This record gives sequence, C-alpha cells and structure tokens, in this order.
Amino acid sequence: MSSQGRALRVIAVDAMGGDDAPGEIVAGALAAHRDGLGRIVLVGDRARIEPLLHGERAIEVVHSAGEVAMDAQASAVVRKSAGTSLGDAIDLVRDGKADAVVSAGNSGAFLAIALVRLRTIPGIARPAIGAVLPGRTGPVVLCDAGANVDCKPEWLMQFGVMGSAYARAALGIAEPRVGIISVGEERTKGNTQTIEAAALLERAPVRFVGNVEGKDVLLNHADVIVADGFVGNVILKTAEGAAAYFREVLRESYESAGLVGKAGALLSRGVFDAMRVRLNYATYGGAPLLGVRGNCVVAHGRSDRVAIRNAIRQAAAVAGADLVGSIGAALAA
Amino acid sequence: MSSQGRALRVIAVDAMGGDDAPGEIVAGALAAHRDGLGRIVLVGDRARIEPLLHGERAIEVVHSAGEVAMDAQASAVVRKSAGTSLGDAIDLVRDGKADAVVSAGNSGAFLAIALVRLRTIPGIARPAIGAVLPGRTGPVVLCDAGANVDCKPEWLMQFGVMGSAYARAALGIAEPRVGIISVGEERTKGNTQTIEAAALLERAPVRFVGNVEGKDVLLNHADVIVADGFVGNVILKTAEGAAAYFREVLRESYESAGLVGKAGALLSRGVFDAMRVRLNYATYGGAPLLGVRGNCVVAHGRSDRVAIRNAIRQAAAVAGADLVGSIGAALAA
Repeated sequence: MSSQGRALRVIAVDAMGGDDAPGEIVAGALAAHRDGLGRIVLVGDRARIEPLLHGERAIEVVHSAGEVAMDAQASAVVRKSAGTSLGDAIDLVRDGKADAVVSAGNSGAFLAIALVRLRTIPGIARPAIGAVLPGRTGPVVLCDAGANVDCKPEWLMQFGVMGSAYARAALGIAEPRVGIISVGEERTKGNTQTIEAAALLERAPVRFVGNVEGKDVLLNHADVIVADGFVGNVILKTAEGAAAYFREVLRESYESAGLVGKAGALLSRGVFDAMRVRLNYATYGGAPLLGVRGNCVVAHGRSDRVAIRNAIRQAAAVAGADLVGSIGAALAA
Repeated sequence: MSSQGRALRVIAVDAMGGDDAPGEIVAGALAAHRDGLGRIVLVGDRARIEPLLHGERAIEVVHSAGEVAMDAQASAVVRKSAGTSLGDAIDLVRDGKADAVVSAGNSGAFLAIALVRLRTIPGIARPAIGAVLPGRTGPVVLCDAGANVDCKPEWLMQFGVMGSAYARAALGIAEPRVGIISVGEERTKGNTQTIEAAALLERAPVRFVGNVEGKDVLLNHADVIVADGFVGNVILKTAEGAAAYFREVLRESYESAGLVGKAGALLSRGVFDAMRVRLNYATYGGAPLLGVRGNCVVAHGRSDRVAIRNAIRQAAAVAGADLVGSIGAALAA
C-alpha cells in the first residue's frame, strides 16, 4: 500500500469513528475515490463496511474488530489502541503503508494515540490542531485550535512555526505572517504567557508580525494566528456562534420588511449557512494535527459524507506537501 | 453636591478623557442633562469646558488643570492622580460628592486610580469590567471583559458573584444564571484555572450553571459569563470582528443579486451597524467597573456624544441600584 511511485496518495480512513459511522464515512470515502482524491483504505469492521461499498473494489478494507467509543477518556484508550479502527488506521501511517490518516472519531483519543504511536517531530513539545478559517481575503490558520490547554510559551512559539510551515506547504502562502492573539496591539499588552511567547516568536524562524486582536482574526491581519488551545477554541466557537446569532437577528429584521425582506432573508440564509459550515473547522475539510511524525487530519464527530470527502482531500494535500518534512526543516533553520 | 434627598443622581464626568475630549464629552453631558438622566458635574479645564456649555448653567464645572494622557502607563500615573481630571472625578465619588463617575479616558489608568482611591469592596481581590452584550433574548454580562489577565481561580469566582449582583441590580434579572467560559460542556473540560474556578463557583452564592462555550455566549445560555479578562477581551473583540466580517460577506453576495440584492444590502447594513455599536461594550453605554467601593463606568476612548450620554445613563442606573451595597451583601451571604 505504500505510495512510492504512485500519483495518488494513500489515505487511511477510520471507518468506525464519527457520529454517523460507518454509513457517512464510507459514503464520503466513495465520493473521494470517485473524485480521484486519493487511494482510500477503510479501517474497521469488514462485515459492516463491505455492504456499504456497493461492490466498489478499488477501495481497500483493513479489518479491525475494535472501536474507540466517542466518549472514551483518551487516557483510558491510548495504551490499548491496537485492534481498534482508530489505532490501526494510525498504525498504517506509522508503518509507511498510508500517507495520511483521517478520523471523525473521538478527537481526544486521536490526538493521544497519534502522539504515542507516531511521536512528535524532534523539537516539538506538543502537537497542535491547525484550523483553517475562511478569512475575508483568504484562509487563516488558527493554531492551536483546541488540542492543548495550559500551554507553555515555548509551545506557543512552536505552534507559530508549525502553523507557518502548514500555511506555506498546504495553502501556498510564500511567507506567512504569524501573529499572536492578545488584548491589544502594543507588545506590552497581554498575559504573561503571550508576552513571553511573543518574545520567543520574535527570534523564531517565522515572519512574526506581533499581536493580533480578536477583531482582526477573520480580517487577515495575519496568515497564522498563534493561541493557547483554550483561547483558540473559544475564538472558533465564538465566531461560529456569532454567525448563528447574526443570521437570527437579520431574519427578524427582514420579517418586518415585507416582500423585499423575504427576498433578502432567502439570500442571507444561504450565505450564513455556508459561513457556519466553513467556520466549523472540521466540516471545512478537517483540521491537520501538526507536530506528529505522520499526516493526521481530525474531522468533526458530526461529519457527513461531504465533510469526510473534504477531510480526505485535505489529507491528500497535506501528504502531497510533505508537511512533516517542512516542519522539521523549519525547526532546523 | 451630595445626592441625599435628591431625585437625580450626581454623575461626575471626566471632561478631558477620550479621543474627542472635551468636545464630545461636554456634548454628551449636555444631552444627558437635557434628557434628565442625572445632575452632571464636569471635571477638567474650565477655560476649555465652559465655552462648550453654551451658557447651560445647570451643569457644574469642577476645575482640574491636569490630564492623564491616553497612552500613559497606569503605573506611572496612579500615585499622582490628584489634580488631573480623571483623578479628581474619581475623588468626587470617594468624598461622597458624586454618586458615580464616567470617563472615556485611559482605561488602564481609570482602573488603577479607582483601585487606589476607592479601594475594593471587602472580600474582592480585583475589580473587573462587566460588559453588557446584546444577547439573542436579552442582555448578557461578560465579566471580566478585560481588566485582569493571569487571573487566579478565586478571582474568577468573585467575578461571578459581582456579575450576578450587577445583573440583578442593574438589569433586573431576579436569579441570574452564572456560567464559566470553557472548551466543552462537561465539567472535566477546561484549563486548570477554569476547572478550579468552576469548583469554587459551585459553592459560591450564585446560581451556577456550569461551563458555557464560545458559541453559546450570545445565545443566552447564561446571564453572566465568567472569564479571565484576557479571554473575555478576546470574546468581545472576536464577536465585534465577526459582525464587520459577516456584513462585508453579505454585501458581496448582495452585489451579485441585482435589485433585490440592493434592497437586502440596505436592510442588512443598518442591522449590522447597530450590532457593531452594541457589541462595542463602551458605546453600548459604557461598562461598569465592578468591585470597587464607588460606582465607576468605563466608556470607550472613541466615545462620541451619544456614547457619553449612554454611559451617563448607565452610571445613573448603577448608582440607583446601589451596586456596591449589593455586591457586599452577596459576598456576606
């Protein structure tokens, strides 16, 4: 299954992970296969997967009897991941049999198992999630989007290096501007963690542009936004909630505006639905797990077939750009 | 100038603080006076203030020759605030000559001087800013909205108590639901700070409803949202930025939709402008500084006359509800 000499990347997909697994996962894999996005290997319960393939023989199935429950504590499953669809899918990457792995399963377990089975790239203390947000004039990478809390300043500096490598490799931004989220533009503004991290980023091999405020995130004041995973998660969800909120407020104002309002409501509804989906980083193609020695894409638990297809596309792009190699190279610089 | 026996509260206003001081400050004070919101005392350079009053004699002027610069370090001005318009306005409250103070000046200096001159309510470690957000079904208090970073869990617990007292006293919410911002609804989700603070809030004299996520803030999942000031500031500014962003995205989609789109654009522009103003906590009437022994309202540096008028209205409401007394009572409970 190695990708050596093949045009298509081999993508291992955890068929049993996700709220609508295996149905939506297999359907998404079929869609990705039809679109030529990669060579798909589905990992999971063969008896449940094969009927869903409707005779499609180009998609390989690797049998795993076990499953990691969506609500399992990561610490409880991390050492006994072998034999589960998630663990075995990750092991395909570790063993060089797949170029990337996608799972919509338990994301805490995904992170923990990937960390143990793949290990981190030398020089990286903690893997981080790099969410791609639909900024006003182009994509914005938010790193960390939720993998780590209580981060040390050194970790934040590394998030900047990894996010920068990702923006360059997968998004084609030549010299990504890296900013750190804070409470004011002046360098003296921030908490102890971010002020110390900013000083480290100043000397890191990235194009550091200083502090960025919450209001600037979607307005492309930087290409990469560095944040503690707690803060990154709050930013992501606040923006997601704001989309739902503005949609409702607009709907009400249209309702009191007669026919023109009706038309406006129809127009804006479509726009807002699209925005909500895009701000949900996972449905927007899944988020790469940066910093481990293997390409991992974390999809949302609620992923449908479209989200899974997009996550596979994202996994193929990450593998094609040799993200792991470019993060290592950036750290060596 | 005491308010004893008077129907109208006495509001001290720092006439020299703010980007457009004293012009917009005095104009806002005149508007508040005309609307019967309070008895206004303007503090600042008499020679510059009086011409702006156009002969209005019901507004008192207390002369202060000095000013606190908008970009001054709080630590540099806190011990020599006497003789500045900001310091003298705060002292009017300390000396019982005014019921509340409003300033659109240097907010860091405002906090620091208020802390030193008024001191905290017994049992309160740090004053906090309580921003009122325009939630979907009613106002939401975000506390702390930016006064403190690197907060201890105990401070967060106190922010919940103060926010709750404010929501009850000034917003008329009988039993405010207090939530803490975190990265998931389960009690085990969060960073060390918020998990410890949640345990304290569990035992505090408030109606604690547990964790609240970023997406729930504007959707009234709680009446009071507890946050470290760093996180609170990021939430506020992310929501503000999202409003600007969605407006632009909608505008573009309307532009490609002909006449109906034009009408929709006009409709939504008004709604979004209103939302941006309301999400900017300061223009939404200023934000109370909670936890000091005196009523303080922090207005935004960019406040125009409308914002100042609203901040004065807010100051009168806070004074009328005896916020300081109700926070003290809540802590004693």
